[in-house]
Amino acid sequence: MEVVTKIEEVRAAVSGAREAGRSVGFVATMGALHEGHLSLIRRSVADTGFTVVSNYVNPTQFGPGEDFEEYPRTLEADNAACEQAGVGLVYVPLTEELYPTGHATWVEVAGLSEAFEGKARPRHLRGVATVVTKLLNIVRPDRAYFGRKDAQQLTVIRRLVRDLCLPVEIVAMPTVRDADGLAFSSRNRRLSAEERRDALCLVQALRLAEHLVNAGETEVPALFDRMHGVIDPVAAAEIDYIAAVDPDTFLRKDHVDGPTLIVLAVAVGSIRLIDNCLVGRGAEQGGEA
Amino acid sequence: MEVVTKIEEVRAAVSGAREAGRSVGFVATMGALHEGHLSLIRRSVADTGFTVVSNYVNPTQFGPGEDFEEYPRTLEADNAACEQAGVGLVYVPLTEELYPTGHATWVEVAGLSEAFEGKARPRHLRGVATVVTKLLNIVRPDRAYFGRKDAQQLTVIRRLVRDLCLPVEIVAMPTVRDADGLAFSSRNRRLSAEERRDALCLVQALRLAEHLVNAGETEVPALFDRMHGVIDPVAAAEIDYIAAVDPDTFLRKDHVDGPTLIVLAVAVGSIRLIDNCLVGRGAEQGGEA
Repeated sequence: MEVVTKIEEVRAAVSGAREAGRSVGFVATMGALHEGHLSLIRRSVADTGFTVVSNYVNPTQFGPGEDFEEYPRTLEADNAACEQAGVGLVYVPLTEELYPTGHATWVEVAGLSEAFEGKARPRHLRGVATVVTKLLNIVRPDRAYFGRKDAQQLTVIRRLVRDLCLPVEIVAMPTVRDADGLAFSSRNRRLSAEERRDALCLVQALRLAEHLVNAGETEVPALFDRMHGVIDPVAAAEIDYIAAVDPDTFLRKDHVDGPTLIVLAVAVGSIRLIDNCLVGRGAEQGGEA
Repeated sequence: MEVVTKIEEVRAAVSGAREAGRSVGFVATMGALHEGHLSLIRRSVADTGFTVVSNYVNPTQFGPGEDFEEYPRTLEADNAACEQAGVGLVYVPLTEELYPTGHATWVEVAGLSEAFEGKARPRHLRGVATVVTKLLNIVRPDRAYFGRKDAQQLTVIRRLVRDLCLPVEIVAMPTVRDADGLAFSSRNRRLSAEERRDALCLVQALRLAEHLVNAGETEVPALFDRMHGVIDPVAAAEIDYIAAVDPDTFLRKDHVDGPTLIVLAVAVGSIRLIDNCLVGRGAEQGGEA
C-alpha cells in the first residue's frame, strides 16, 4: 500500500493500476476510520482491482464554531486499517493543492442543500459537494462508495454526479451499527460513557418508527409524536430536526406512501449526531436512483 | 467525421480514439461557426489526434430577455466546416441529457463571475462554468481550446479547471478579426451594414489604447478619456463598460503596471458586442496562468 499527498502521485498510481487492467474503487473519508468506513473499503476491495482511500478533514465543510479543530485525527491507525483491508493507495491531500491561493469555485446543489443539514450547517453541503467533485476528478474512479448514514450528503452527491456528467458509479452502503445499535460515527469517540447511553435514543426512536410503519401507521405526525416520546425524556438530548422526506429529493412528506426516509439530528451534550432509516413500501430499493 | 447527440456515443468515440493511441482535443461552441472558432478547431486538429467539437446553444447562460431564441443556428454549415477542418466528432447535446429533470447543480466561480459580464448578464458565467464542466466531464479531453475574445469567460474557465482539479490543459487562442478589424462573433451576423460600420468603434478604441500605452501612457483614466472620444460620437453605440483589469483576477487596475487587459462591452443598436486587448509590459505572456 502506498501513502501519497500530491495530486500528481495519485494520478500516476491510478494510471499504473489502469494500465495493469485493474478497475478503480474510491472511498472518500475524513479519517478517524470506524466500521462504517471499513464496510465501504472492504466492499470496494472486493468489487474493484485497486482501491483508493482519501483521508482529509475538509475545512470548507465546517462552519465557524463547528468542530473542525476537535475533529479526531488518527492517521497512523487509519493507514494500518487500510493496509489490512487491502487498500492500494491512501491519499492524504495537501490543503494548498485542494484550495490554492485564489480558490473561488464552488459546486452548489440548489434546493437539496438548503434544508436539514444545510440549514443547521450553512455551507456544509457546498463544502462536501465541492471537495467530492475535486476528489472524483483527481482519482477518476469507476465506482465510489458512500454510506447511507449521511443520507442527505448521499443524495447531494448522487445528484451532482448525474448533473455534472461525472463518469462514476455511486454505490450506497447500509449504515453500520455498533452492538448497542448506535450508528458508527467518528464523532462517537467524543461522547462520554453517559452521553453514549443517552445517544441510543436516536436509534430507539428510529426503530420505533420502523415498527409503527410496519404495523400500518402512515401518518407522519403520529410517528413523530411517538419518536418525541422516546427522545424528549432524555435530558441531555436536544432535537435539531426530525423529518420524513423523499429519499431522492429530500422534500418533506406527510404520509408514508412508498419509500420514505426518516432523518433526524440530535445534539447529545455538545456532540451533534445524525441518523436515519428508510421505511415504507419498497424501502429496500428506495434511494437507489 | 461522426455527428452524435448522446453522452454515451461521445464516450464510446473518445474511448475508441484513445485506444488507438490518439490524444483528444476539444472545442466547445454554440455553433454559428466563424473564423474565430475555426482557428481553435484547426489548432486542435494540428495539436491532437482526435478533435471533438460540441455545438450547443446553452440555455442556462442566457438571461430572461436575452437573445437565446434569436441566437443564430447553422448546424449544417457548421458540420461542413468541421468536416473540412478535420474534426473527428461533432457532439450536438440533448438538453434532456445535460439538464435532466430535477437538475440542481451549479458551478460558481465566486468573485470572478460578478463584475462586467457577470453584472451585465446575471448568471451568464454560472451557466458557462456549469456547461463547460459538464462538457469536459463528458469528453475528457487532454486539451481544450478557448478564444481570448471572451476574456472573462476564459479566466473563469481557467480558474474552475484549476480549482476543481480537472485534468485538462486549457489553451488560449488569439482573437481572430475580420479584414476591417472587427472581432469575429456569431452575433455579428445580426448587425445591419450601418451597425457593422458603427461597431468598428470598439476596435478603434482598443487600438488607440494600445498605441497610447506603447507611447508611455500608464494612467487608466487618461486612456478611458481617449477611448470615450472614439466611441461616444457614434450615436448607435452605447457603452456598457470599459475597464482595465488584471487578466488573472479581473480586479480593476488604475495604472498599467504589467500585463493589463482592457475590456469593453458596447451595444450597437440592439446587438451587444464585447472585445478586449492586452497591454503593458509582458502583455504577450499575460493571462497564461
